[in-house]
Amino acid sequence: MSDESEIYKRQNFANPVGLGRRPALLIVDFVVGFTDPAVFGGGNIADAVAATVPLLMEARRQRWPVAHTRVIYKADGSDAGVFALKAPGLRGLTADSPSAQIVPELAPSPGELVLDKRQASAFFQSELASWLAYRGVDTVLVAGCTTSGCVRASVVDALSHNFRTIVVTDCVGDRALGPHEANLFDMAQKYADLMPRDAVIAHYRAQPA
Amino acid sequence: MSDESEIYKRQNFANPVGLGRRPALLIVDFVVGFTDPAVFGGGNIADAVAATVPLLMEARRQRWPVAHTRVIYKADGSDAGVFALKAPGLRGLTADSPSAQIVPELAPSPGELVLDKRQASAFFQSELASWLAYRGVDTVLVAGCTTSGCVRASVVDALSHNFRTIVVTDCVGDRALGPHEANLFDMAQKYADLMPRDAVIAHYRAQPA
Amino acid sequence: MSDESEIYKRQNFANPVGLGRRPALLIVDFVVGFTDPAVFGGGNIADAVAATVPLLMEARRQRWPVAHTRVIYKADGSDAGVFALKAPGLRGLTADSPSAQIVPELAPSPGELVLDKRQASAFFQSELASWLAYRGVDTVLVAGCTTSGCVRASVVDALSHNFRTIVVTDCVGDRALGPHEANLFDMAQKYADLMPRDAVIAHYRAQPA
Amino acid sequence: MSDESEIYKRQNFANPVGLGRRPALLIVDFVVGFTDPAVFGGGNIADAVAATVPLLMEARRQRWPVAHTRVIYKADGSDAGVFALKAPGLRGLTADSPSAQIVPELAPSPGELVLDKRQASAFFQSELASWLAYRGVDTVLVAGCTTSGCVRASVVDALSHNFRTIVVTDCVGDRALGPHEANLFDMAQKYADLMPRDAVIAHYRAQPA
Repeated sequence: MSDESEIYKRQNFANPVGLGRRPALLIVDFVVGFTDPAVFGGGNIADAVAATVPLLMEARRQRWPVAHTRVIYKADGSDAGVFALKAPGLRGLTADSPSAQIVPELAPSPGELVLDKRQASAFFQSELASWLAYRGVDTVLVAGCTTSGCVRASVVDALSHNFRTIVVTDCVGDRALGPHEANLFDMAQKYADLMPRDAVIAHYRAQPA
Repeated sequence: MSDESEIYKRQNFANPVGLGRRPALLIVDFVVGFTDPAVFGGGNIADAVAATVPLLMEARRQRWPVAHTRVIYKADGSDAGVFALKAPGLRGLTADSPSAQIVPELAPSPGELVLDKRQASAFFQSELASWLAYRGVDTVLVAGCTTSGCVRASVVDALSHNFRTIVVTDCVGDRALGPHEANLFDMAQKYADLMPRDAVIAHYRAQPA
Repeated sequence: MSDESEIYKRQNFANPVGLGRRPALLIVDFVVGFTDPAVFGGGNIADAVAATVPLLMEARRQRWPVAHTRVIYKADGSDAGVFALKAPGLRGLTADSPSAQIVPELAPSPGELVLDKRQASAFFQSELASWLAYRGVDTVLVAGCTTSGCVRASVVDALSHNFRTIVVTDCVGDRALGPHEANLFDMAQKYADLMPRDAVIAHYRAQPA
Repeated sequence: MSDESEIYKRQNFANPVGLGRRPALLIVDFVVGFTDPAVFGGGNIADAVAATVPLLMEARRQRWPVAHTRVIYKADGSDAGVFALKAPGLRGLTADSPSAQIVPELAPSPGELVLDKRQASAFFQSELASWLAYRGVDTVLVAGCTTSGCVRASVVDALSHNFRTIVVTDCVGDRALGPHEANLFDMAQKYADLMPRDAVIAHYRAQPA
């Protein structure tokens, strides 16, 4: 997309926003069903899960706030809406279903926020922005899946809430690689800085306490 | 993207949601600056503006609620946030700037909502969802620009608010065609039905009053 | 408060908004702990619960959408914020605590929405407004407790979302009667119509189907 | 209300939350029409305006973020909803009407946020929470009018967004004194700390820079 980058550059998009002083880690929808190609998984999602394990360890070591999301619908269908017409498989993600559980290698620790959501964005009609603000967070590091779905929607909202937003490139994945790449492009132009995991970690390790 | 469509089909995405009984027309950011390639325009945006003129006429004839959006920042910088760091040109879109005015051929009529926004989505921290609900709207027809930016963000939120969401394909445009196509693909899979303008008009003309 | 009513009348407040065509019933926080004076209860709350039983039956008979709310905090404290500093007892309302369960006589039926919330308003950062809009609701009938707390906050937000908002006077209660009366006064002036339960029921029974 | 305070005390409400390290000043609806008893004013509002002048000076001296709100409806009625049915006089508060202008003694300075709103709460469907969070604010000092209306609604939302919320008692006013007092009581029990202006100023002057 070199021609397209040129158009954006000419219009002064894609400026780096940079990392702030107080990051949080947001892990979007790394649940069993999104790592299983027979449910909602596939592509490079399994790799992104594996790459996120050391990032979560770093977050805990540095005592960054950590929030995890899951998609959860009620078993009686009472909260299913238009999204569940578009993608009816979502309705199978009930609180007790194996597919809806966070993958064991990223299991939440006490004090980390576990947000159950019905829509794509982790911020939509949720307490996430207030939860982050209460903790003094100015920067949201985003891992999770899918890049073209709930990650993209959460990134747009994180920026809209005025958080510096970083897509940790090796820690996001998608069931299909074309949309993965296309959405990384869009986010880099308009909504987020893209950084590999180790660059993020190195940056914060180099900060004075 | 035929392989990718296959992946989504296998996971039961992309089901048509269909048109509801009470549509509204949402026209996103068709302002002078987004039709000018030297500011934020280019690509197929001018064509999309032209295609929207008859759609707006139909909306008025049928008395559908109509909402227009503009991006507006205050001249003193008091409401500029992270988005304006990523894309500093946005700050030039002040209430009085020529670039921020809705294009003359789509000028709002009295009673139509004109929403000034600072972020990508027309729904983000705005009264739009309540305004539509108060009018009994169940379906949002989306025109505007850019497909990969404010249209996409508004479509995700329209669905998340439980409106049946229709991207009117010839009435949305983008400064660059790769992202335009990639975002139509994503929206069709997960968030919206894609329909050309004349099919939308024909559908509603065929309804009993 | 006759002098005060006069001030409001002179400034043209307190106009009746009236009942719309498509009501929903919102039952706020009628949980065990709010009926127990040793926890959060007292005053006229028990009477309000009893009065709500026939209203809920009518809602089910008429197939109105019904939403119930509970206050729920996570046992690990991860979602406790400033409200829980002001009123630390809230943190005892965990998903499994007896105090947080909806009273048996108003137990939710399948398909009714059960909203778990952390703040006063049922609408704050929740899916309630979208859930109601998706069901075509234009009028919210409010029962619950406390009048001066979660009922008041929910009523202000219901109106702000453009729902015709009705406080069902015998179906709301408070731990202390002074604030109960003072908040009925405020809501009547600015945010809601006040109607006794039987008048609401009679109104809708008299409507053509 | 000594009996009633007792009930709240027994249930462990009314704990002081305290002032945080980074305050902002929120001035709610101190506009011409709310100081005029023939429009929406009366009571102790004029006194509250006068008391707020030194608080605003202090905020500027200390470089605290300052946000002002006004109620503004569009002249064509396009954004009037249920609130404007309840209180039709609101529709006269258009952007150009003398009644809707901030009182001259509290005129905003460049860089201060001026929020135009249609509903009671300054936070409802507005950018205020994100604007405050972006500035690192943890505490909201609330002045304005009316205590029982837009101040109360804004205070409930400020707390719900997890800001430490302080009602500056001599800087809030209402058209009628009964509701003023009743709402101070409710806010003190559940949502905010009540402090006179000079105590707030003294507290922050005593802090190290």
